Amino acid sequence: MRNVITLTTDFGLQDYYVSAMKGVMLDIAPDVRMVDISHDIPSQDIMAGSWILKNSAMLFPKGTVHAVVVDPGVGTDRDPIAIKIADQYFVGPDNGIFSLLIEEHPYEAVRLTNAEYWRDNPSNTFHGRDIFAPVAAHLSQGVNLEELGESAEDLKTYRWTVPITDKNGIEGMVMHIDKFGNLVTNITADHVEDVIGDRKVRIYIGNTILDNIADTFGDVADGEPVAYIGSSGMLEVGINKGDAQQMLGIQKGAQISLILQKQAES
Amino acid sequence: MRNVITLTTDFGLQDYYVSAMKGVMLDIAPDVRMVDISHDIPSQDIMAGSWILKNSAMLFPKGTVHAVVVDPGVGTDRDPIAIKIADQYFVGPDNGIFSLLIEEHPYEAVRLTNAEYWRDNPSNTFHGRDIFAPVAAHLSQGVNLEELGESAEDLKTYRWTVPITDKNGIEGMVMHIDKFGNLVTNITADHVEDVIGDRKVRIYIGNTILDNIADTFGDVADGEPVAYIGSSGMLEVGINKGDAQQMLGIQKGAQISLILQKQAES
Amino acid sequence: MRNVITLTTDFGLQDYYVSAMKGVMLDIAPDVRMVDISHDIPSQDIMAGSWILKNSAMLFPKGTVHAVVVDPGVGTDRDPIAIKIADQYFVGPDNGIFSLLIEEHPYEAVRLTNAEYWRDNPSNTFHGRDIFAPVAAHLSQGVNLEELGESAEDLKTYRWTVPITDKNGIEGMVMHIDKFGNLVTNITADHVEDVIGDRKVRIYIGNTILDNIADTFGDVADGEPVAYIGSSGMLEVGINKGDAQQMLGIQKGAQISLILQKQAES
Repeated sequence: MRNVITLTTDFGLQDYYVSAMKGVMLDIAPDVRMVDISHDIPSQDIMAGSWILKNSAMLFPKGTVHAVVVDPGVGTDRDPIAIKIADQYFVGPDNGIFSLLIEEHPYEAVRLTNAEYWRDNPSNTFHGRDIFAPVAAHLSQGVNLEELGESAEDLKTYRWTVPITDKNGIEGMVMHIDKFGNLVTNITADHVEDVIGDRKVRIYIGNTILDNIADTFGDVADGEPVAYIGSSGMLEVGINKGDAQQMLGIQKGAQISLILQKQAES
Repeated sequence: MRNVITLTTDFGLQDYYVSAMKGVMLDIAPDVRMVDISHDIPSQDIMAGSWILKNSAMLFPKGTVHAVVVDPGVGTDRDPIAIKIADQYFVGPDNGIFSLLIEEHPYEAVRLTNAEYWRDNPSNTFHGRDIFAPVAAHLSQGVNLEELGESAEDLKTYRWTVPITDKNGIEGMVMHIDKFGNLVTNITADHVEDVIGDRKVRIYIGNTILDNIADTFGDVADGEPVAYIGSSGMLEVGINKGDAQQMLGIQKGAQISLILQKQAES
Repeated sequence: MRNVITLTTDFGLQDYYVSAMKGVMLDIAPDVRMVDISHDIPSQDIMAGSWILKNSAMLFPKGTVHAVVVDPGVGTDRDPIAIKIADQYFVGPDNGIFSLLIEEHPYEAVRLTNAEYWRDNPSNTFHGRDIFAPVAAHLSQGVNLEELGESAEDLKTYRWTVPITDKNGIEGMVMHIDKFGNLVTNITADHVEDVIGDRKVRIYIGNTILDNIADTFGDVADGEPVAYIGSSGMLEVGINKGDAQQMLGIQKGAQISLILQKQAES
């Protein structure tokens, strides 16, 4: 039985948008448990939404339905879609919001063309309430993907900028800064393992130079910067008990360089 | 069975106010599912709370209990009340928070005078925890409205300013700006239908002039302003993939004029 | 049966941290109901977290499990712990976050040393997902405290600054300012009862002087300052329908003096 629906939106909570979706869902699926993933995705920031989904959705139990509405193109010709990945379901706009998930997992997808599962007279500007919420609720009640519409291929996707690696090391960028000011880069643990391995490396970011990749915050003193592989499997730069964004003056998009060092210099 | 309680407050989530209400509710109604509508209502903004309720509460299933605490008058002589509208229940202060709902729907109401359903020794300053939460929880367990207190009439109500319509067109105002910067006016789809109909109209708001009411964002290019009937049934002005509040420099309370055009001018 | 888990964190909701915890919990405990206490604790503000717990956790029903992650020391040598207080369970770091609860209640505690109840290969920087969430979920399924690890004593604790009382009155401080700008002091109702009782008192805070402790906001006119015993049992200073922080220019940490007056002066 599918009895959990999560919600991920950029709606905030000052408006009626989230609660209207919840009302519609409960009215169709009275026993469903709704779990807020986030309503604080920055407005229309598709990749921020994709990032949060990539790092949490697949942790949920089989049968979970994820309703995702970060939808700058509502009222234009982008399609509403539903996706199935390993016994989990995703409903939202075909605008790249599922990019980081479908890049990693095999999936099936349909375009939501069967209006039987929508609210009557859907508005042009609030598909969250009128299409995505009822479709997610029907999915939670056992409706199959193929009943919702026709098979979809060539879904729209975005990619993060990929780091450049050569014999000197790795050039990457800060692609996300978390609430604590930790700088999340686009350099994966695999990049570090493959290109750096056990060799000495020097890390340059803004005006800060670090001499190694540590295991965790506690490897440096309070207030000191530290590079480490974060909980998402990406290289991060943080400050032990501090805010790296503020203290190092780094913004999203900043460059980070990992330069291999000759052993003689060590 | 009534097993859903929604919460709508201006408490934010930095304080213990919302969680204290949830603890009290669960202790009385262990199987209830609690659904957050919003805790981000602007402090003491009764009409903002009424607006969110108007646009979402009645979408919830029959038997839902809505606990609503936007209560600038706590600790003064305003009464706590409960209202029944079409098999849904509302609990909160009699300060106008239910205005937009009771303007639209027939209702029964009681003043909460039966302290048997309150917490013992209720505080003077936190009726959310001590009166509204336990009363909502008892309602969810099947207690009837009339057990909670004596019948209430002449509830306190507010109204939005009503647009002025004459042979030249409609003068209205921006009564709400949503998280995306869309400007929600007090002009309803019915106003537009009745006064404008199929005739040509020119729309003036701030320094912006629009030549028609479109169906949706996608009718204009990215970054262009557009007037449309929004998902709440009100005339809105937005920017396709942009923020109208910022880009047009419009604040809550701004005037909007719909002026009928002579056909010769078209 | 224990079927409610609450979450209290300083994670905010822009990142995947909260949703990853929820996914892990639901995967272990599919029928659990998760209740958000707050994810808006100021970053790494242990005492703000302790304050919200003190004022709401014990209102929840028996068997509730509280997962608490305000954890500036993640990745250092602070221990993860679980605590039982009167049939409720708490899981989080041993960093003082439970100070205000264990100061008031008898408790048992264990250090979380049994990795059988953790996720495999826990990260160094996200114990919320890898240790606290799964342990909370297992507790909700009936696992006993002693199965989680070895008995813990000498838990780390913080204390609020205690007011100074003498024959002239009470000197205290503002230890919390709520969302409405109400100034919550470290002076309890008991302090006031013991030191002031029925005698006349004058209250000094910033440039404001108050001549008595009132029952509630409604005892003064709109816009006027008022001292009262708040819903947490502490002396507060607020403004009837206004924001005391803004209107009185008071910050957290400000001094408040209650000076006993000679009857002749009254």
